[in-house]
Amino acid sequence: MTEKAYIKGSAFPPLVDGKLRLYSMRLCPYAQRTRIMLAHKKIPYETVNINLKEKPEWFLEKNPLGMVPVLEHDGKIVYESAICNEYLEDIHKQNSVTPTDPYRRARDKMLLEMNSKFTTAYYKALRGLKGEDANSLIEAVHASLVPLEKAIGERGNFYGGDKPSMLDFLLYPHYERIEGIRTGFHADFMPMDKLPKLNAWVSRMQTVPAVKETMFDAQTHIDFYKSYGSGKTDYDIGL
Amino acid sequence: MTEKAYIKGSAFPPLVDGKLRLYSMRLCPYAQRTRIMLAHKKIPYETVNINLKEKPEWFLEKNPLGMVPVLEHDGKIVYESAICNEYLEDIHKQNSVTPTDPYRRARDKMLLEMNSKFTTAYYKALRGLKGEDANSLIEAVHASLVPLEKAIGERGNFYGGDKPSMLDFLLYPHYERIEGIRTGFHADFMPMDKLPKLNAWVSRMQTVPAVKETMFDAQTHIDFYKSYGSGKTDYDIGL
Repeated sequence: MTEKAYIKGSAFPPLVDGKLRLYSMRLCPYAQRTRIMLAHKKIPYETVNINLKEKPEWFLEKNPLGMVPVLEHDGKIVYESAICNEYLEDIHKQNSVTPTDPYRRARDKMLLEMNSKFTTAYYKALRGLKGEDANSLIEAVHASLVPLEKAIGERGNFYGGDKPSMLDFLLYPHYERIEGIRTGFHADFMPMDKLPKLNAWVSRMQTVPAVKETMFDAQTHIDFYKSYGSGKTDYDIGL
Repeated sequence: MTEKAYIKGSAFPPLVDGKLRLYSMRLCPYAQRTRIMLAHKKIPYETVNINLKEKPEWFLEKNPLGMVPVLEHDGKIVYESAICNEYLEDIHKQNSVTPTDPYRRARDKMLLEMNSKFTTAYYKALRGLKGEDANSLIEAVHASLVPLEKAIGERGNFYGGDKPSMLDFLLYPHYERIEGIRTGFHADFMPMDKLPKLNAWVSRMQTVPAVKETMFDAQTHIDFYKSYGSGKTDYDIGL
């Protein structure tokens, strides 16, 4: 098994009986959601990284949508990050992070839906950073974050209150990348004066052991986004 | 309480203590998902229909996303159809429709994700029915339905096997509208020769009591879509 990304034409890495496999991409925020969950629950697994621009043929047989993360275990395939995390929570009961109250569970899912407005604005702004509309795109990111700032203010240290919950793990990865965008692209997606509580939450999340295990530093995110922007994405950055 | 849609400027209909309220729109397929769930579980509720083009100010305070369905009960607000249905399943245990097996639950959520490719293609084709690309847009709908046809073929009478499950309720509403599109707009989104099992499933769903309670006939769907296309949506059609 290699950390390097498997590419179109590469041979399928044989499955090991009984071992859980994660198809991932090292810098993908959605795959990171599931990597945090696996780390938090201390579930043993192996990683197969995928070149998402030139996907191996066998990867599309695992997930016809062609995206990571994908879990494979004993012939069972699960994809979509939130579904992967719920599945892991269901089959590995230790260190549970799902609220027991039905209304809190519903509210967390509504906040995740709100967060998808942010991720849409995030990618739109990233693509438009060199354009004339850059400022208005960045302001749209700020606006999309207001409900998240309000919610963390009401809830405490984490969206889960005293401790991180499933929602914290699902939200966190995109926010990790904002420091790199700030320093490497001179664009502030999360200004301290407008969104102080979200900024504090990101710093706090970075002290959580499961998050620390999965993090990359700001410079690696900058380098990755620059390689992506150049059209020659370096999936093996830093290896 | 009136069945007619509440519009911008209208007064807020007072809440009744202890009574569950559904904010809906009579012809909305997403609201129908939750109407089926409420009917299946025989949960008492009142309906407040909303004019989605000119929304009452108080509606946006309930759901900042401005969409139906929304549930309100004892000061609690839940929106997004799949989240509403999960919440109802959690707080009303009778007539459960959620699979108990974690892998089946994960697979159902993956199929719902696949179905969102169909709904995207569905609305794109509806908007493009008069354009030059109509045929290729309709063919994209057929292609998006292949995974759903395959899945129902493997599962039996319903996506839940012998009986309808949560997934059947979430999928059904858009398919109800296809007969109206077929006869009223001369466009077949679900040809019998290409998708025989899905066609049979729709007919079978229409014998389910909870579905029957929420259905509109093909002509009403045609009239509604025509009013929508004219720019003057008739939210009170047939009243």
